[in-house]
Amino acid sequence: MPELRKDPIHGRWVIISTERSRRPSDFVPEERKPMGGFCPLCEGNEDRTPPEIIAYRDNGTPPNSPGWTLRVVSNKFPALRIEGDLNREGEGIYDKMNGIGAHEVVIETPRHHETLATMPLKGVAHVLTAYRDRIADLKNDQRLRYVLVFKNHGVAAGASLEHSHSQIIALPIIPRRVVEEIEGAKNYFNYKDRCVFCDIIRQEIQQKSRLILENNAFISVAPFASRFPFETWILPKTHYSSYEHMNSSLYEQAAQTLSRMNRVLNDPPYNYVIHTSSFSGLEAEHYHWHFEIMPKLTKVAGFEWGTGFYINPTPPEEAAEYLREAK
Amino acid sequence: MPELRKDPIHGRWVIISTERSRRPSDFVPEERKPMGGFCPLCEGNEDRTPPEIIAYRDNGTPPNSPGWTLRVVSNKFPALRIEGDLNREGEGIYDKMNGIGAHEVVIETPRHHETLATMPLKGVAHVLTAYRDRIADLKNDQRLRYVLVFKNHGVAAGASLEHSHSQIIALPIIPRRVVEEIEGAKNYFNYKDRCVFCDIIRQEIQQKSRLILENNAFISVAPFASRFPFETWILPKTHYSSYEHMNSSLYEQAAQTLSRMNRVLNDPPYNYVIHTSSFSGLEAEHYHWHFEIMPKLTKVAGFEWGTGFYINPTPPEEAAEYLREAK
Repeated sequence: MPELRKDPIHGRWVIISTERSRRPSDFVPEERKPMGGFCPLCEGNEDRTPPEIIAYRDNGTPPNSPGWTLRVVSNKFPALRIEGDLNREGEGIYDKMNGIGAHEVVIETPRHHETLATMPLKGVAHVLTAYRDRIADLKNDQRLRYVLVFKNHGVAAGASLEHSHSQIIALPIIPRRVVEEIEGAKNYFNYKDRCVFCDIIRQEIQQKSRLILENNAFISVAPFASRFPFETWILPKTHYSSYEHMNSSLYEQAAQTLSRMNRVLNDPPYNYVIHTSSFSGLEAEHYHWHFEIMPKLTKVAGFEWGTGFYINPTPPEEAAEYLREAK
Repeated sequence: MPELRKDPIHGRWVIISTERSRRPSDFVPEERKPMGGFCPLCEGNEDRTPPEIIAYRDNGTPPNSPGWTLRVVSNKFPALRIEGDLNREGEGIYDKMNGIGAHEVVIETPRHHETLATMPLKGVAHVLTAYRDRIADLKNDQRLRYVLVFKNHGVAAGASLEHSHSQIIALPIIPRRVVEEIEGAKNYFNYKDRCVFCDIIRQEIQQKSRLILENNAFISVAPFASRFPFETWILPKTHYSSYEHMNSSLYEQAAQTLSRMNRVLNDPPYNYVIHTSSFSGLEAEHYHWHFEIMPKLTKVAGFEWGTGFYINPTPPEEAAEYLREAK
């Protein structure tokens, strides 16, 4: 059983993932690992993944067989386990609990070489709808408090499989980074009686210098205090605290944003995360769901680890200009 | 002039480093960059670095010439500038100030292939003393509030030069990660009237399962909630809040710890940081300085960025056992 452990100084939680336990000799630099070869996520290899939780498939095709456009399966090496109780307990001054939670993989396409930046728009729409469906279902588990949807694309961004996929982890704790964001937004709301994200959207549309793309319902923007070169956020223009309220024009905005990044940076490794409200729903007024896309072009090093500060060599105004002009 | 910008949601600061401004085509994956070739940090090439701020050198040798064992110089591409005023100002809802601060490089040895894990003990002692000397000097600058000493070793850990060196950045702001640590320690102190680090040290010496090395004044330990495989902290057994109180046996402890890591993990890429109290000195009772050494064996990916949670595949008890037994 994986273990959740809390740092007694920062209150930061870590998952000690026994499922993936590794000895010193197991750490091979990712760059030296061979890619290619057999792919368990390709169509026809359905028996090489755990059974599907949901799938979008042709009428009449049975589960776990070919004929699908998207599948969601449990992670074969889950960081957290869905069965069991939390068993919160202490160990001297330390706190821990069982690693309960969900860890799912969204297989975004049956085709090995298709990516979100290159697949047909309909494929992107399926992926974003699958996220919504899984979040809605996981919310029913009373032991869980938060769900994170994220994607690692490319070896440098931590992807261990080449085939386009994203991941969903549901947690028994609201994670620290999310709590900070929610608390920060709440402080702003208490002070100004306005949502900080709504204020950001207003200022970005007016200033234009960091605006990348805008449609009827969304903006894509290089944030004023971007941590990484070409960091890009997608925000809904209407105030909604949770991703389930996504609008159908999201897939166009997401596909176009990723495809511009793809052209300007030549298929860069990247991570994205969806930040949405917690299962409690207490953040409806002050929180505003959004996508954060982080290309991995530089290394995060000692200074960043030690301070939580970031050094970004590309001003967001310049990044936005490149992405805006990449028609 | 570099710019410090504050994220209006999290209060997180970033440095927009115009000194290193980069276009899309400048981002070459580090792995594809050629290493080797001319080294500006080697003995004999003193004219290829900014002038030395301090140096430990043979009697009678003039500054910026051969005959040294250690040099500290300004960073040739500084993230922050030492000249000027902070000029704090707003831009709509955003906050920014000039990127004022110090950015120095500690050239740890005149010899290209020597590392902290392999150099004579005396060399390590010089490095740790240089840190102390520079911190003491930078504290005199009234515009600055915190100094971080850190090291990036190996390409995967963000080092852009092979020659063994570390860096010192002094900041006009106490960085977020440090504030969190100080606040966390203060909360613990307010609740228990004891230093949380002192309590950790007591429990680790008693439990032994995460203890790696112990001498008269220091312990090296795999933290209970390690974020990374083989993460190791070095803590002084006596309560001191700031690094300037380092004891002379620190260099033995640091050298042995790094050398064991070197043997067990085969010269791994790693980062280390020194966490010490801020220039205000207000943390004397509840804060406890320490080293955090973080081998870079796994990639930090979407889940970590999105949550601030970490997934660690190597239980700290197992990591400690490997390092303890690496005689």
